[in-house]
Amino acid sequence: MNNQGYVLAADVGGTNIRAAIIDSDGIIRKEQRFQAGLSHPGISGQDVIDALAGALSGLTGDTGNISAIGIGFPGFFRGNSGIVAASPNIPALRDFALAKALERRMNLPVSAQNDGLCAAIGEHHFGTGKGKSNLLHITLGTGIGAGLILNNQPYTGESGMAMELGHLCVDTNSNALLCGCGNTGCVEAYASATAISSRYAELSGQQRDAASVYALARRADKTAIIIFEEAGAYLGKAIAEAVKLLDIHTVTISGGLSNAWPLLQPPLNLSLESNLITTQKGRIFVQRSSLNDNAGLLGAAMLAHDLLA
Amino acid sequence: MNNQGYVLAADVGGTNIRAAIIDSDGIIRKEQRFQAGLSHPGISGQDVIDALAGALSGLTGDTGNISAIGIGFPGFFRGNSGIVAASPNIPALRDFALAKALERRMNLPVSAQNDGLCAAIGEHHFGTGKGKSNLLHITLGTGIGAGLILNNQPYTGESGMAMELGHLCVDTNSNALLCGCGNTGCVEAYASATAISSRYAELSGQQRDAASVYALARRADKTAIIIFEEAGAYLGKAIAEAVKLLDIHTVTISGGLSNAWPLLQPPLNLSLESNLITTQKGRIFVQRSSLNDNAGLLGAAMLAHDLLA
Repeated sequence: MNNQGYVLAADVGGTNIRAAIIDSDGIIRKEQRFQAGLSHPGISGQDVIDALAGALSGLTGDTGNISAIGIGFPGFFRGNSGIVAASPNIPALRDFALAKALERRMNLPVSAQNDGLCAAIGEHHFGTGKGKSNLLHITLGTGIGAGLILNNQPYTGESGMAMELGHLCVDTNSNALLCGCGNTGCVEAYASATAISSRYAELSGQQRDAASVYALARRADKTAIIIFEEAGAYLGKAIAEAVKLLDIHTVTISGGLSNAWPLLQPPLNLSLESNLITTQKGRIFVQRSSLNDNAGLLGAAMLAHDLLA
Repeated sequence: MNNQGYVLAADVGGTNIRAAIIDSDGIIRKEQRFQAGLSHPGISGQDVIDALAGALSGLTGDTGNISAIGIGFPGFFRGNSGIVAASPNIPALRDFALAKALERRMNLPVSAQNDGLCAAIGEHHFGTGKGKSNLLHITLGTGIGAGLILNNQPYTGESGMAMELGHLCVDTNSNALLCGCGNTGCVEAYASATAISSRYAELSGQQRDAASVYALARRADKTAIIIFEEAGAYLGKAIAEAVKLLDIHTVTISGGLSNAWPLLQPPLNLSLESNLITTQKGRIFVQRSSLNDNAGLLGAAMLAHDLLA
């Protein structure tokens, strides 16, 4: 087996790390999921590097045939420096040179970037958004991530905090739901997997994860259906707000909750169209990503391949 | 008088055209305001060209010593082509090659662009936003316009409709105000000069223009004060939404209603800070433009100067 052109990629979350060996065509050759618990308050920066090194090495045995590493990480990065300015989900990393620390540890070049932006990069290279110069990509998972491609380049913003679409306010009513960020009415409080689950608990009194609520909705459970209709409508409203500013025509959606696309799409499109300004109506296409929940992993792989170019 | 390096610039509105002779340092050498009434349904594209040519020629007598023309126009442009795709305020212009038609008429090179973007360009070259690579500029006038500079370049979006910040939804309550665009809860329905005036009529039963409402507020008229507090707060919320997506640190505000900055600023900043996500708080600086209502005119002049470069 010739590993020339193979890279290691990791998609890091607060609870899990997904790691994979990926070739330059975006084919995942081997993949593993590791429990990490990086959100815990006792975790140090060194612990994060240990967990990442463990996950990546566990995948390859040794890293001799791999030429670079790409990391998608849930935090704000300083431009393309690989430095994490801050991470609400993994607070241990603050002004932390993640790429450099992992580079020293693994003895391989490392590139690291925000996970939502990685997903946009993966989508832009390999997914439904392939070939589009401008792309807004949204990841519906535990939270809501987003990334923007402008003129074929990832957009980071001035301090790596661009595209916090999950925290756009879509409900200003006095009974708007509280978001994990501390504000009320954020779309993440209505249309993330966490929100679907907690809305169902609130309305039915029963604890279900988002996948189960979706299964219930498919079996005509009225409460579950209402929750997905509401989620789709709020998501459509948030996309409309983004389009009013960015004037982007192509929007793609990936992540675990995108499995519920058949239920999310109709209310999403209705709400998007009604919230857009007249001249934008009928021009914006929101599609489910062909990459399911691999967009972030593939984007991280592209970061690694770019190091070799 | 050596006119080398002088250009003609026009800032076009539905009711008025402001035209000026401007030098390459952004100094307005001569300026006139013309009534035009271009919003009327009977107006044709040719009428618009006639009105523009009349305003520009009226300013110079002849255009012999002028080397180029720049136009800021309230419409959506196809990239930098000078073609107006559509104009909600001046419906006569639809898929209309404004720059080319005026070029033929005036026998001078013409550049034309969206008025909100022109104001951002003017602000970026000559105003408070000078020297900032990234800038969000907002024009508070009859409506609310906005323009974005990213990496020192004007951002137009995919179809010239970017930065419709005035139509961000800041109020989803059932009694949210109706906006001219047909939607409810747009920030333009609360924080434009038109909104200030119509809110005052609604709450007090008295017809006043925005400048008079401001004068009343300065004399402690409670209704007027409440209206400006509400306008500032909604404007701060709209800016927060834009910052969550764009991660821009510098925001400048010009236009006629920016004269009310002493009243708008405190509620604006309070609302901005409370609506931002934690990691962005304290990093965003909203300032009144030093250009008052000349930002658009100066930006149009820069477009013309760029034609000569």
